[in-house]
Amino acid sequence: MSTRMDFGQPVVDCDIHATVPSIEALLPYLSDHWREYIRTSAFKGAVDTAYPPNAPTTVQPGMPKPDGSLAQIQQQVLDPWNVEVGILNCTYGIDGLHNPDTAAAMASAVNDWLIAEWLDKEPRLRASVVVPTRVPEMAAREIDRVGAHPGFVQVLLPVRSEAPYGHRRYLPIFEAAVRNNLVVSLQFGGSPGNPPTGSGWPSYYLEEYVGMAQVFQTQVLNLVVEGVFDRFSDLRLALVESGWTWLPSLMWRIDKDWKGLRREVPWNTQVPSAYIRERMRLSLQPVDAPDEPKHLLQIIDQLGSEDLLMFSTDYPHWHFAEPEQALPIGLSPGLRRKILRDNARAFYQL
Amino acid sequence: MSTRMDFGQPVVDCDIHATVPSIEALLPYLSDHWREYIRTSAFKGAVDTAYPPNAPTTVQPGMPKPDGSLAQIQQQVLDPWNVEVGILNCTYGIDGLHNPDTAAAMASAVNDWLIAEWLDKEPRLRASVVVPTRVPEMAAREIDRVGAHPGFVQVLLPVRSEAPYGHRRYLPIFEAAVRNNLVVSLQFGGSPGNPPTGSGWPSYYLEEYVGMAQVFQTQVLNLVVEGVFDRFSDLRLALVESGWTWLPSLMWRIDKDWKGLRREVPWNTQVPSAYIRERMRLSLQPVDAPDEPKHLLQIIDQLGSEDLLMFSTDYPHWHFAEPEQALPIGLSPGLRRKILRDNARAFYQL
Repeated sequence: MSTRMDFGQPVVDCDIHATVPSIEALLPYLSDHWREYIRTSAFKGAVDTAYPPNAPTTVQPGMPKPDGSLAQIQQQVLDPWNVEVGILNCTYGIDGLHNPDTAAAMASAVNDWLIAEWLDKEPRLRASVVVPTRVPEMAAREIDRVGAHPGFVQVLLPVRSEAPYGHRRYLPIFEAAVRNNLVVSLQFGGSPGNPPTGSGWPSYYLEEYVGMAQVFQTQVLNLVVEGVFDRFSDLRLALVESGWTWLPSLMWRIDKDWKGLRREVPWNTQVPSAYIRERMRLSLQPVDAPDEPKHLLQIIDQLGSEDLLMFSTDYPHWHFAEPEQALPIGLSPGLRRKILRDNARAFYQL
Repeated sequence: MSTRMDFGQPVVDCDIHATVPSIEALLPYLSDHWREYIRTSAFKGAVDTAYPPNAPTTVQPGMPKPDGSLAQIQQQVLDPWNVEVGILNCTYGIDGLHNPDTAAAMASAVNDWLIAEWLDKEPRLRASVVVPTRVPEMAAREIDRVGAHPGFVQVLLPVRSEAPYGHRRYLPIFEAAVRNNLVVSLQFGGSPGNPPTGSGWPSYYLEEYVGMAQVFQTQVLNLVVEGVFDRFSDLRLALVESGWTWLPSLMWRIDKDWKGLRREVPWNTQVPSAYIRERMRLSLQPVDAPDEPKHLLQIIDQLGSEDLLMFSTDYPHWHFAEPEQALPIGLSPGLRRKILRDNARAFYQL
């Protein structure tokens, strides 16, 4: 597969993965204490299993494996795809670390590594702040520590979590994001320790992968009905690698049931779908695409807004066999432009 | 609201709720031991919270509350809706009982109560076998005990469970269902003890209610990829009160990811959506309906089969304000007939 695609215009790529190549890459950004701890203990950094390195959902056959270098991202994404702004998401598995001080130290190291090795070297890049999600107060401190850097545009939360993110324990994270004018993003993956389904542990990676859509659905519902968007009128939420063909039916279901049960959640001043359409945006890839292109256009119409989708390559997790498949077929020119660039520029205030 | 609806033809109603009115109703079907246990201990039978009795999702305002009588079901559903066959689902919360012998005794009592008080008195009724799902071998024994009664057409499993139902521990239930030529149904609700989401406990009943769709999605995926349908070529699965507008996007997502990861599940001989379309059927109500009727027709088209939907009133949980809303608007006459009657007759071999 060629990795070159000329859309005839610059694009904003909302999901490029920066991968910590090894613990050595982070050592310069850790204190003496943590360097010694890593050298002398069994702990060698977080283990992220969201993307088994050789799974077909990670890298298409025949594609080079990411070596974690800026040069590779420049050569394989930024240049050939005419990326005006690319947002780096580093899914280093901080949330799998149960020692809160370790988690905080590793998150800080990743953020400082992102600044030094990526943001300060390549003006086309932006990035998401990595935080120790298990201890929201420490996450808020990390957001305040680096949030003023112009390269950071959002806070990354793994979509899997111990409790739904609308629970009040997580409020400090949203407060800090809003205080620093950052988007909050829910990102595919996470290693909170609890099962990723409402019926316990599934057996196969296929289930974890497909089932991540259900976890996104749970979080979207919870964040709306807990009133997080009512509390923070400037909060913006990005769903990254969530898929989105499930969104219309979810909005129908939530709106319908909310009408019957809304006295439970009196802080909601509008129907749930209104919060979703106003405050949430979704990365384009991966598309859970039907065989018939017309069905995909029906879903896009059912979304009820042309503002919701933001282009992404999900590099290096190419989900399309050919670059032409990176966009749905049959978009109107106006919607095509919005998806490729305008929606993300407005949402991230680029 | 009137409860009368003339569709111009008889219908099969796949989801009528029979409610155990109180523990006294079951005493005649329990042994001396359990009668004494109930009289002298704090245990007064299962507690089912799937439908809080006054929630708007349970009974529409102004509608009479179900008194648990056959006469009421005859007067409110069977007669006025011209129901040729109605399938009783009793969601008595057996799965919330952690003492396996208690669970088995209560399940047997419910089934014998269904036979004596309902099936043997009203030839239009069929019912689902209630089983102690936590101990599949005991569930299988109960299925074998009553499965030959002509009134039983399926086995009822609450969709929420401790582990996905495709796990091998549950095989005895599917074996027994197939051995007795019964459909297996996944039914809204359940009280397994574990959280109903992949991110822990939600805060509101609204979330449990909306989120049940995600639990159905998890089970559908798991049952297919674990190979349960490959193992049992005669297995039929009904999804009851699951909603179904989420099904097209789920099929797209599973099929796509399955193509990349199917070497994990080599027993699958066809794409997951083929198992769903061939072996699964879904009750019509509740419909997670969009504002625009055309969107609902698009979803019905995206299902890719006219055989999947089976009419249901979900009595007494009316989800529609007027009887005319019991069916989607704009169905072709052929599809209307299939949904109202033919699909269920074929599936349940009525």
